[in-house]
Amino acid sequence: MSEKKLPVSQTRLEEIAATYGTPYYLYDEGAIRANARALNAAFADAGFTGFVEHFAVKALPNPYILKVLDEEGLGMDCSSLPELLLCERAGITGEKIMFTSNQTPDADFEKALALGAIVNLDDITHIEVLEALGGGRLPEMLSFRYNPGPDKVGNSIIGNPVEAKYGLTRGQLFEAYEIAQGKGVKRFGLHTMVASNELNIEYHKDTARMVFTLAKELKERLGIALEFVNLGGGVGIPYKPEDEAIAWPALARAVRGAYDEILGSAGVAPLIKTEYGRPITGPYGWLVCRAIREKHIYRDYIGLDASMADLMRPGLYGAYHHVTIPGKEDRPADQVYDIVGGLCENNDKFAVQRPLPKIDVGDLVVLHEGGAHARAMGFNYNGKLRTKELLLREDGGVLQIRRAETAEDYFATLDFSGLKEFK
Amino acid sequence: MSEKKLPVSQTRLEEIAATYGTPYYLYDEGAIRANARALNAAFADAGFTGFVEHFAVKALPNPYILKVLDEEGLGMDCSSLPELLLCERAGITGEKIMFTSNQTPDADFEKALALGAIVNLDDITHIEVLEALGGGRLPEMLSFRYNPGPDKVGNSIIGNPVEAKYGLTRGQLFEAYEIAQGKGVKRFGLHTMVASNELNIEYHKDTARMVFTLAKELKERLGIALEFVNLGGGVGIPYKPEDEAIAWPALARAVRGAYDEILGSAGVAPLIKTEYGRPITGPYGWLVCRAIREKHIYRDYIGLDASMADLMRPGLYGAYHHVTIPGKEDRPADQVYDIVGGLCENNDKFAVQRPLPKIDVGDLVVLHEGGAHARAMGFNYNGKLRTKELLLREDGGVLQIRRAETAEDYFATLDFSGLKEFK
Repeated sequence: MSEKKLPVSQTRLEEIAATYGTPYYLYDEGAIRANARALNAAFADAGFTGFVEHFAVKALPNPYILKVLDEEGLGMDCSSLPELLLCERAGITGEKIMFTSNQTPDADFEKALALGAIVNLDDITHIEVLEALGGGRLPEMLSFRYNPGPDKVGNSIIGNPVEAKYGLTRGQLFEAYEIAQGKGVKRFGLHTMVASNELNIEYHKDTARMVFTLAKELKERLGIALEFVNLGGGVGIPYKPEDEAIAWPALARAVRGAYDEILGSAGVAPLIKTEYGRPITGPYGWLVCRAIREKHIYRDYIGLDASMADLMRPGLYGAYHHVTIPGKEDRPADQVYDIVGGLCENNDKFAVQRPLPKIDVGDLVVLHEGGAHARAMGFNYNGKLRTKELLLREDGGVLQIRRAETAEDYFATLDFSGLKEFK
Repeated sequence: MSEKKLPVSQTRLEEIAATYGTPYYLYDEGAIRANARALNAAFADAGFTGFVEHFAVKALPNPYILKVLDEEGLGMDCSSLPELLLCERAGITGEKIMFTSNQTPDADFEKALALGAIVNLDDITHIEVLEALGGGRLPEMLSFRYNPGPDKVGNSIIGNPVEAKYGLTRGQLFEAYEIAQGKGVKRFGLHTMVASNELNIEYHKDTARMVFTLAKELKERLGIALEFVNLGGGVGIPYKPEDEAIAWPALARAVRGAYDEILGSAGVAPLIKTEYGRPITGPYGWLVCRAIREKHIYRDYIGLDASMADLMRPGLYGAYHHVTIPGKEDRPADQVYDIVGGLCENNDKFAVQRPLPKIDVGDLVVLHEGGAHARAMGFNYNGKLRTKELLLREDGGVLQIRRAETAEDYFATLDFSGLKEFK
């Protein structure tokens, strides 16, 4: 079970609405910091010194959030040029960044090199590309992404590794390390990423076993002592009240168990990296909306002032996001609603046939688990504009860390002046 | 069968690439104009004077395209405030615009009223809302959206009308017209929209029958002679070569048949409106990309310089978009590729296990049917930036009608200056 609570009272949510307007994303800085500390403590307690979690920037690409996480000792996981630029502008550079990209344009590699990021190559052919872009030299440190293909069953969300576009095969992996070694690379990492939103701890332990076994083989066959292994992300969060979160200490102990079992006498002791996004910030963000319309046809509808432009997951995946009506938490859920946005798409529904207390127009409606892959996945279809992000500070104050889009933002790539002469 | 051809030669595509860079969307102005004229001619030939197609702006919200369509006598179908503003800035106002929205914010209604657009109400409760926003008066012209619920089977894409958030029930519809009549509304329209991307002409004829029957009943029961009925959109296009397009003359004749059959002696002769988007511009746009990476693991991959940020439909719906390699059209399709983008999502694939000629890095790769619900649905997930739009003029020249996004666009809603003092 996971408790679905709000970070502040209904009164405070209304105060914030009075200042900033609805809808708004609200992120709980204190909870994010405490979570980051708990993760680091769990891996330290399991005996992993030098553990670094590289936050998956795509989950919540806001520089204020990145700065908070940087202060708590987290690194960053970037996979595009704009994500690298975002980190740079947040003051985060060097090996704090791990750059894991695919079909990578030259410009992206060049920026990663310029920032001194750890480059994690997705394909064996990228060795030559990187070498050429580096003026004939590879960086001192290099990592490769492993795709186990038929040797690992993917989880239900990320799909079958054999059908995944990512990474090197087992055969390519050994070849790639050998080539890189021959070209003077001194420090090596190994990466994999085979799950998404997975709550089964055994799955993650199995992934750790897989990469630790590879680390052992790389030592035996090529004499390479990996500096780190990156276990990837994929740790899920309890979107539904009945889901159970993975506790950091249990995860760290599971990884430790696999580590000791496989690497205990292997003569290689890589540092551990992870690249979680969702479990770092996901549970600590809320999309706070207002019920603006009520409609009763073949079903009963509550229309919000937000749409799937603000939160795509329910419309895109049919994903569950818990809904709370502040001030009505204790009332019986004796109504059944479709909670919808106003986008001209019938899948713009935040909740379908959801039992809830009676909702009145004017009520706040809060969507939970809005801290990851939420605002970040929004689009502008149908001319819908993406909303603002607010940070709930540890002193209870609120800071706007991203303004809402305006129509002018929507028009930014258009040149209306040319329209006059256009015929 | 539908022929999948390119609007210009490989040489010309490369010239355009040399000027503007890849990827780019290319829209064929001449083909769009010819198509718009053919649609208008088909309905005129079927005896429908006063026929107006209101282009679904969300399909291709570019003011240059809107201006082209406006010149060809088309109206616009808007469903959000930014879409209304876009039309206004393209010089399109008044009853050329039909405003069909749901969960509509007050500001959107106000702008529709200010522009003199035809307002199409989604719910019976919106009568009061609109009246209040109009200073206690409803506009002279009003339309309502009908949701047939159990009386109509939805097509496979839009889903079951009973589960659709749109429109009024049959009972509410008659009540709404009566209320509006009592409040002094003089001119009436009726609207429905029950299909998406449907290629079966009988389905569309059946929809026409449904609304014409309602028009007859409204005359009989309330004495209302509808000024127009809007048959909605939902006419599909042949994404696959084996699909057959709906020919405009056949569609117009089918509608005419239903019209004569049901309204022939009803004493009411509403004008016909439609709100097609996809079949107006969809086949006349192409996403022109460059193959930048090639990869051979458990499958063979070609990586493009575009991603699902530019074209979401394949990743989102598993939708088929035809792929052409310019200059290799006549070569045997003896390879099987996954054609992918570089977004850090495994569903960022434009084509999966597609037989194609051998592709080399550096080749252009063209995705067909990019003229509707393509650039418009893009997002910025993973920091990916959306690409530019070019118009192929009738004289063979090219005009950039939307620039590509830059990192600065991606950062536009962020205030980095505040980050310095942030702790």
